[in-house]
Amino acid sequence: MIDNKKIIAVIGGGQCSSETAKLAEDVGRKLAKRGAVLICGGLGGVMEAACRGASAEGGMTIGILSGESRRSANPYVQIPIVTGMGHARNVAVVKSAQAVIAIDGSYGTLSEIGHALQNGIPVIGLGTWSLSRNGQPDKAIIVAKNPAEAVEIALDSSRD
Amino acid sequence: MIDNKKIIAVIGGGQCSSETAKLAEDVGRKLAKRGAVLICGGLGGVMEAACRGASAEGGMTIGILSGESRRSANPYVQIPIVTGMGHARNVAVVKSAQAVIAIDGSYGTLSEIGHALQNGIPVIGLGTWSLSRNGQPDKAIIVAKNPAEAVEIALDSSRD
Amino acid sequence: MIDNKKIIAVIGGGQCSSETAKLAEDVGRKLAKRGAVLICGGLGGVMEAACRGASAEGGMTIGILSGESRRSANPYVQIPIVTGMGHARNVAVVKSAQAVIAIDGSYGTLSEIGHALQNGIPVIGLGTWSLSRNGQPDKAIIVAKNPAEAVEIALDSSRD
Amino acid sequence: MIDNKKIIAVIGGGQCSSETAKLAEDVGRKLAKRGAVLICGGLGGVMEAACRGASAEGGMTIGILSGESRRSANPYVQIPIVTGMGHARNVAVVKSAQAVIAIDGSYGTLSEIGHALQNGIPVIGLGTWSLSRNGQPDKAIIVAKNPAEAVEIALDSSRD
Repeated sequence: MIDNKKIIAVIGGGQCSSETAKLAEDVGRKLAKRGAVLICGGLGGVMEAACRGASAEGGMTIGILSGESRRSANPYVQIPIVTGMGHARNVAVVKSAQAVIAIDGSYGTLSEIGHALQNGIPVIGLGTWSLSRNGQPDKAIIVAKNPAEAVEIALDSSRD
Repeated sequence: MIDNKKIIAVIGGGQCSSETAKLAEDVGRKLAKRGAVLICGGLGGVMEAACRGASAEGGMTIGILSGESRRSANPYVQIPIVTGMGHARNVAVVKSAQAVIAIDGSYGTLSEIGHALQNGIPVIGLGTWSLSRNGQPDKAIIVAKNPAEAVEIALDSSRD
Repeated sequence: MIDNKKIIAVIGGGQCSSETAKLAEDVGRKLAKRGAVLICGGLGGVMEAACRGASAEGGMTIGILSGESRRSANPYVQIPIVTGMGHARNVAVVKSAQAVIAIDGSYGTLSEIGHALQNGIPVIGLGTWSLSRNGQPDKAIIVAKNPAEAVEIALDSSRD
Repeated sequence: MIDNKKIIAVIGGGQCSSETAKLAEDVGRKLAKRGAVLICGGLGGVMEAACRGASAEGGMTIGILSGESRRSANPYVQIPIVTGMGHARNVAVVKSAQAVIAIDGSYGTLSEIGHALQNGIPVIGLGTWSLSRNGQPDKAIIVAKNPAEAVEIALDSSRD
């Protein structure tokens, strides 16, 4: 691993409100300041905002792309990984991370949350899904109040 | 498509209680009686019980396997598809189906629910996950009271 | 497995000459007559011709599709498996088979030959690639003179 | 892209002779000296030797892992991407690259050559496979005489 840096995934919608984008950008900034590598799906919305934030602080950004071309990456992805595997790439986004920060997001984000938890990878939520199972609340997603807390928890809980 | 039969996915845990297995077996039976093809992840628990039910009624069963060998399939899988792709095979299970019936299940099932909804494929739930998003209940999972209703809704709502 | 039927893959180009299509159709017919299930990539060219031949003899045909819709399957695919995984689906085509018959074909077919041989799955060639490695001919692809011989060898050599 | 650096894949066996390892290490060194990012399957043999060479010159190394754990990466992989997708990860190794250098290698390497050529990505060979198709030599693999030439051709021919 690169200087023992942690790899943290940021997941969320490919389109998002400007308010959500601000949260994502802030998460990206704080991850970079803390020396973490950011991994994501490499496209727009939350992914782009997080990469923009990380880049602004000199952080490294990886985008695991669903499509067939590196050109589909947002301009702040430094390392585009081209899979051509569609939504199956969601699996690689979360499996490559030591913790996952979920920001807002729709059903694709939900699939990534499922894959992360299935693999025992901590998921920290910022205004995202919450879950109940057979009527009982499932507390696996750790709720953060703000970007600073999300980053703090992600780095603390990241599995080795 | 085989005589225009519908393909319906049954998803759920690789291990389950005997009560849940009964539900899954009943779902499998009823799908077969209605002429649907059953697709699943091909392993144990809910998947095996559903395949056993379908087989008992002469229905066709497909298992999309995560591992490297057809021998990992449960004994009621008639058509084993070997992917060696681990959890990425979850994507193919739901994308191949015209509707998905989720029975109980854990985080892997949650990832499949996410992938199905992301693709606009109806998900019918029997004692499974329920979702809220940013504090608002998300009603995308159609709740069924029993196997008969789950099968009925799956066949009615299955997209073409 | 469905009545202990063998699953044999037919691989080759998505477009092909009418001469090659005749070979592929004949292979499909003979596989069906011998009671084998045909698996392929589900698209046009060699895949479609083989499925057409198998269907004409009442055989079962499975198409592992690279795209996002069952509608991309050729009309003779009875069981469309939708992966949305692009060329990664090539892996599932060959891993699901007990032997592979390669007919003509280009680089996609070459990738499938590689994946099959990597997994110890016999590959029978009909006017397809031949290989040398570091200057030495590699005889792993079993050369067949005609469809009848290809099918014979595939069924005889199919691993369990 | 990271400072417009090129990403070049090095493919080859997970085990190799010490002679082959020397070639791979030299390729890795030269890629790093030229400022290219090295991508590979992240495991042993040719992959490890190439990463070791690149690391020795301060180059960046990416490993796209087939397994479920970053710990399966060789010690010179700086950025481990965990897919859990088995051989399907071969597709992402080559699609992420702007050119591919194949060194020795067996059937897995052959599958990667097929995937690369299918995507129009230049393949440069060092003591690796050579191909004939229907009896005619296929010249798609560009033969290099030594590591220096392989790296030169890879950087020159890399598609944008």
